[in-house]
Amino acid sequence: MDGRIATRLQALGITLPALQPPVASYVPYVITGNLVVISGQLPMITGKLAWSGKLGGTVSPADGTAAARQCFLNVLAHLNAACDGDLDRVARVVRLGGFIACTPDFTQHATIMNGASELAVEIFGDAGRHARSTIGVPSLPFDAPVEVEGIFEID
Amino acid sequence: MDGRIATRLQALGITLPALQPPVASYVPYVITGNLVVISGQLPMITGKLAWSGKLGGTVSPADGTAAARQCFLNVLAHLNAACDGDLDRVARVVRLGGFIACTPDFTQHATIMNGASELAVEIFGDAGRHARSTIGVPSLPFDAPVEVEGIFEID
Amino acid sequence: MDGRIATRLQALGITLPALQPPVASYVPYVITGNLVVISGQLPMITGKLAWSGKLGGTVSPADGTAAARQCFLNVLAHLNAACDGDLDRVARVVRLGGFIACTPDFTQHATIMNGASELAVEIFGDAGRHARSTIGVPSLPFDAPVEVEGIFEID
Repeated sequence: MDGRIATRLQALGITLPALQPPVASYVPYVITGNLVVISGQLPMITGKLAWSGKLGGTVSPADGTAAARQCFLNVLAHLNAACDGDLDRVARVVRLGGFIACTPDFTQHATIMNGASELAVEIFGDAGRHARSTIGVPSLPFDAPVEVEGIFEID
Repeated sequence: MDGRIATRLQALGITLPALQPPVASYVPYVITGNLVVISGQLPMITGKLAWSGKLGGTVSPADGTAAARQCFLNVLAHLNAACDGDLDRVARVVRLGGFIACTPDFTQHATIMNGASELAVEIFGDAGRHARSTIGVPSLPFDAPVEVEGIFEID
Repeated sequence: MDGRIATRLQALGITLPALQPPVASYVPYVITGNLVVISGQLPMITGKLAWSGKLGGTVSPADGTAAARQCFLNVLAHLNAACDGDLDRVARVVRLGGFIACTPDFTQHATIMNGASELAVEIFGDAGRHARSTIGVPSLPFDAPVEVEGIFEID
């Protein structure tokens, strides 16, 4: 990779993670028209969940935010594959969906999801500014604390 | 505003609310092709949550339905901005997503979300008839009882 | 129906269920461009919920998986209507969203949702391979254990 975004990733000290294979019967992304729809990603690092548990429970806000950031990195790795390794083809981060596993009294979902959203803007600049929905959930696959999905427009 | 939909809003006695700024690092909407993707909206009125708590808990069904309606009004205000103030450009309400903060034994999610869905049809007529998914969640940002997101097709 | 997919359904012993009417103020699907967006479907059989309750509670994993499969069959019935009865027009299953009503300690969401995903691939082959997000929820409309929504690309 030697494009504009690849250079930006390097400046940010970010190495794209290895592609996380789907945990079940689906694929990591589908391209339809000029949209890339990416499956919900968990905070895996080299094939293992790096955090588990719930916000408001055993997972601290700082860890939750780090987990959301890692989810976005896994989204990004699949996006890179969808673009044949050229992230400069990304015209816009259209939408991120954030799912925060939490206790019923938890209220800081937005802060946690910023771990993903702020990274999107750091990497893509204005094109990284996206629509977003963030919700609490009682549990996620494999007891993950966060799951992030994404829709991107590519050229 | 003096178009067809603006006239309809006036007839319904609806004033578009002030634009609610995002509560975190994202934008209220993104336009991709002829789709407007609008971020999840909470039932804010002039910058404050007008309801908080959960259905099946301290929030009555009537209040939950009113909250869903208010969420849709906030969606509508952003849609109006996306259309440069001309809601007549809305060709179709494509999809609404409804998130209902509730207790595990709550079952009337559909009725609550009708507060948003019925308003969409009142305002846009047949073009307001939309696909929809409604789910329960244990909690939402800032203890909001309802969150509504939307996708719209514009000309 | 006598197309390729209709023949495949017959070989699988699948009869499309009767169209389940929406449970509230919305429509089963909207077509925008070449995308069909289908409302969240519950595991109804001939107008009645065939399963109720939660995973991790009174609903076994086998029943949850069967419920997810039934949800997809209801998605499929609406997709068939959207295609005027010709499922050969389906170019790609783009995305399935899976909502699993469960207890906070449940972790096997992915397995349950495979009831829908594996059927998509059985029916559509490679075109059935889709992006997917699966999350837990505390409750669903009418105490359903699973809800599945879908986006499809058609010709």
